[in-house]
Amino acid sequence: LVSSDGDRVQIQVGKATFGAGEPVFAAGPCTVEEPEVLVEVARGAAAAGATLLRGGAFKPTTSPYSFRGHGEVALKALREAADEADMGVVTEVLGTSQVSLVANYADMLQIGARNMQNFELLREAGRQPKPILLKRGLASTIDEWLCSAEYIAAEGNEQVVLCERGIRTFETATRATFDVASIPVLRLRSNLPVIVDPSHSSGDRRLVPHIALAAIAAGCDGLLIEVHPRPEQSLKDGRQTISTEELQKLVAAARRVAEAVNGVPLPR
Amino acid sequence: LVSSDGDRVQIQVGKATFGAGEPVFAAGPCTVEEPEVLVEVARGAAAAGATLLRGGAFKPTTSPYSFRGHGEVALKALREAADEADMGVVTEVLGTSQVSLVANYADMLQIGARNMQNFELLREAGRQPKPILLKRGLASTIDEWLCSAEYIAAEGNEQVVLCERGIRTFETATRATFDVASIPVLRLRSNLPVIVDPSHSSGDRRLVPHIALAAIAAGCDGLLIEVHPRPEQSLKDGRQTISTEELQKLVAAARRVAEAVNGVPLPR
Amino acid sequence: LVSSDGDRVQIQVGKATFGAGEPVFAAGPCTVEEPEVLVEVARGAAAAGATLLRGGAFKPTTSPYSFRGHGEVALKALREAADEADMGVVTEVLGTSQVSLVANYADMLQIGARNMQNFELLREAGRQPKPILLKRGLASTIDEWLCSAEYIAAEGNEQVVLCERGIRTFETATRATFDVASIPVLRLRSNLPVIVDPSHSSGDRRLVPHIALAAIAAGCDGLLIEVHPRPEQSLKDGRQTISTEELQKLVAAARRVAEAVNGVPLPR
Amino acid sequence: LVSSDGDRVQIQVGKATFGAGEPVFAAGPCTVEEPEVLVEVARGAAAAGATLLRGGAFKPTTSPYSFRGHGEVALKALREAADEADMGVVTEVLGTSQVSLVANYADMLQIGARNMQNFELLREAGRQPKPILLKRGLASTIDEWLCSAEYIAAEGNEQVVLCERGIRTFETATRATFDVASIPVLRLRSNLPVIVDPSHSSGDRRLVPHIALAAIAAGCDGLLIEVHPRPEQSLKDGRQTISTEELQKLVAAARRVAEAVNGVPLPR
Repeated sequence: LVSSDGDRVQIQVGKATFGAGEPVFAAGPCTVEEPEVLVEVARGAAAAGATLLRGGAFKPTTSPYSFRGHGEVALKALREAADEADMGVVTEVLGTSQVSLVANYADMLQIGARNMQNFELLREAGRQPKPILLKRGLASTIDEWLCSAEYIAAEGNEQVVLCERGIRTFETATRATFDVASIPVLRLRSNLPVIVDPSHSSGDRRLVPHIALAAIAAGCDGLLIEVHPRPEQSLKDGRQTISTEELQKLVAAARRVAEAVNGVPLPR
Repeated sequence: LVSSDGDRVQIQVGKATFGAGEPVFAAGPCTVEEPEVLVEVARGAAAAGATLLRGGAFKPTTSPYSFRGHGEVALKALREAADEADMGVVTEVLGTSQVSLVANYADMLQIGARNMQNFELLREAGRQPKPILLKRGLASTIDEWLCSAEYIAAEGNEQVVLCERGIRTFETATRATFDVASIPVLRLRSNLPVIVDPSHSSGDRRLVPHIALAAIAAGCDGLLIEVHPRPEQSLKDGRQTISTEELQKLVAAARRVAEAVNGVPLPR
Repeated sequence: LVSSDGDRVQIQVGKATFGAGEPVFAAGPCTVEEPEVLVEVARGAAAAGATLLRGGAFKPTTSPYSFRGHGEVALKALREAADEADMGVVTEVLGTSQVSLVANYADMLQIGARNMQNFELLREAGRQPKPILLKRGLASTIDEWLCSAEYIAAEGNEQVVLCERGIRTFETATRATFDVASIPVLRLRSNLPVIVDPSHSSGDRRLVPHIALAAIAAGCDGLLIEVHPRPEQSLKDGRQTISTEELQKLVAAARRVAEAVNGVPLPR
Repeated sequence: LVSSDGDRVQIQVGKATFGAGEPVFAAGPCTVEEPEVLVEVARGAAAAGATLLRGGAFKPTTSPYSFRGHGEVALKALREAADEADMGVVTEVLGTSQVSLVANYADMLQIGARNMQNFELLREAGRQPKPILLKRGLASTIDEWLCSAEYIAAEGNEQVVLCERGIRTFETATRATFDVASIPVLRLRSNLPVIVDPSHSSGDRRLVPHIALAAIAAGCDGLLIEVHPRPEQSLKDGRQTISTEELQKLVAAARRVAEAVNGVPLPR
């Protein structure tokens, strides 16, 4: 089902359409915080041009003792803040037991890098109708990634957006090595939309705009970005979070870059 | 809970004791096959010195269209063949929904490399009493691996045996790069038993004995090995499967090596 | 000497200035071919906007039995074709014994990925006055790369342009994993110009324009590109070589992208 | 010339014979120090069973400002200490200009990981008669490594001993990931002797014996080990240096392990 034959797939999530030529911007805090802060984030992000609100209600953490998110309370807050700002909600689902709960509140379910080959979760995601954002695993080849998308599609849900977030290499200057070439490679091997997460791949807000613009220039369909009104105060991962003001400039630059590469035919 | 303080943990599975000084041998086919073949494997492995029968009833496969194992039928066959040969059973559990089913038949539950950070599964494994065999993820650091063991322990099940199976690197001569140094590193950072899987890490039966003996010399507590009476006829992964006869020689050599390194103090 | 203090370094090579805001285009065949073909390449590349002619006279080859370039004959041909098209010459020097010979013909000496830590060669390159193009080693961190630039600078030659060409990872969809984030990271850690080689990193001409434009969007100072009037006929590495016509389109798009990101402040 | 056809190559260096079945032990300080300390090291190493004295006179250093060894003075000291203890000398040559100087003093020339694809140096090493110790590059595949050996052999010197010293991966618990499987893989692809360097690959003296014994169990032909009478006082890299007393125990254990695996046929 996931192949490079036929037209490119377009996926609608709220007002956003992935794969339609215009980059989609999904923005929000790493982890969902106080409702009032979230509304502030949502309004700022929407004003900057984002149509999707992102934020973690359930957080995957390497250690069992780290803060793992506020759960359903956070899902409600996300939904309300998004509605307030007329946005869609995309948020991560960590396991099969959370799928229906998260789908009650979100417009798009995110499957994270660590779960890219959690086949039980992939199948469960394929059996419900909400679009899926499938992140690339840290040690996954592009072909394995597409096989995971196929797991979802094989169960009936062909609405899968791929999200490049960097792979694990020896280089420690960035948290992961952002594989910008995967964007045109995916064009050759599939017809699914591809977005990128420059925040988690870099782990450094000073790098985020440049990785984001590179990805747009390489032909990606959107950005998933951590944003906060006051990044230095954000609950988690503030080091990689940009401000709402920076998001505004980034969206404007991304649109200029998307236009600049408009005439360059992407590989088929 | 998982630390290097205190005595090394000993874990009993049937007649096997991990961490007691003598290497444990778990052997069997990649994927469970006809009951009569399985009984033949079990008897051959037991005669060679193996005390645990391994074999896949549920197989993780990169593509949704690959053969994914015979499921409960295979679990039954594993149990019967193991009983016949007076062995314990270790087999993989792919998701939370399979935990109680697999625990009904097996003496030890294996969590595979792709699921090393499937936190929902780790927690479920921690809430039941059977010992866990936790494989290292393909792109996981040793510290992340120990955090995953901690997820299981934090739920109440401290019976975790770690299994090194190689990490993903640029080298393609072997399927994964077997990280033999992780064995002494784990001695410095935890008190859990460590075994190795030379079959999956190499993907080549000609390499299996040499990687296995290297691991024993480095101080590991056992081997998880693919074995078949007629490897060239095995259902899956025959290229990396050794014969029962080769297993017999390997077990003998492994015992000689274990004795040869007996006087070398492992790091604490 | 190589630090992020002070102004960014500008390096003049013929008509090209690296680090002055406008991207520099260096183009030419992988390996130098017949003089008449070379002149055709040079004229086509110059017409497309390239100011430097690149091409291998001495080729590093993994096997001693591969074709290793035409040597001095090729250097002469490069010089003549470049003069004909009013371009500068950049070409690789493989060892200390070639430095003065190559410097006789070329305007800029390239040190390849395999030689990034050939300290004897780095020092020799630092003792002569021609600018150096220093490629990143396949397994080199950004900090090690900068230390190699420092080896050159420490001998007196501070005219070093860095060239990202991808690092070695597990992913085989591209020949190397192009590390686009190294561009802004280098801005934070040095004031040297940075260009990129999308041809060798990808190994696939269909990917070249997209990686090139991504690098421009990330703030790089130029491109080193394999080009040939008839790529399918080129002597070596034709699979990754683009046509002169494609170069023309790429240069135009690169200029549009450079303008589009003009207002985005690069990190300091 | 480098192939797996025919008998395995045996290489004689002083009293040591690589590839003859008995492991060879080369030991000494990371960097050559005071002559009297060196004599003490040599005598201790010889008493422990080492037949080759190793030590750096010219050191490859990432930064041009690090200590780069004592040069010819150190070569003389190495020679004298080795003669005193009736040992051979193996030491690194960093560039073509040092080859004849180093060959004047040493019995075997080491080409380091960073120079594995310094083709000019490989050819120069092939044009002189002393045996070569060729370390694996940090990002080199086994096949590339063998091609570099072929560069030396193609010039007339077929006396090449390969030395595994780990590859660069994402894991930071050790300085490099020691690829123990390369030992049997090399048996399948070449007939050259293979030794290992557990000191540089681990960077941690607590791991050295276990990696060394693993390599012996996997079938390697010898060890290259950093040793010092008082490791904590050694000039460089003391963290990875074992004491002469520990060397003695290691040699004894290595011999027991070599005997234990004696009956296990290595792959051909």
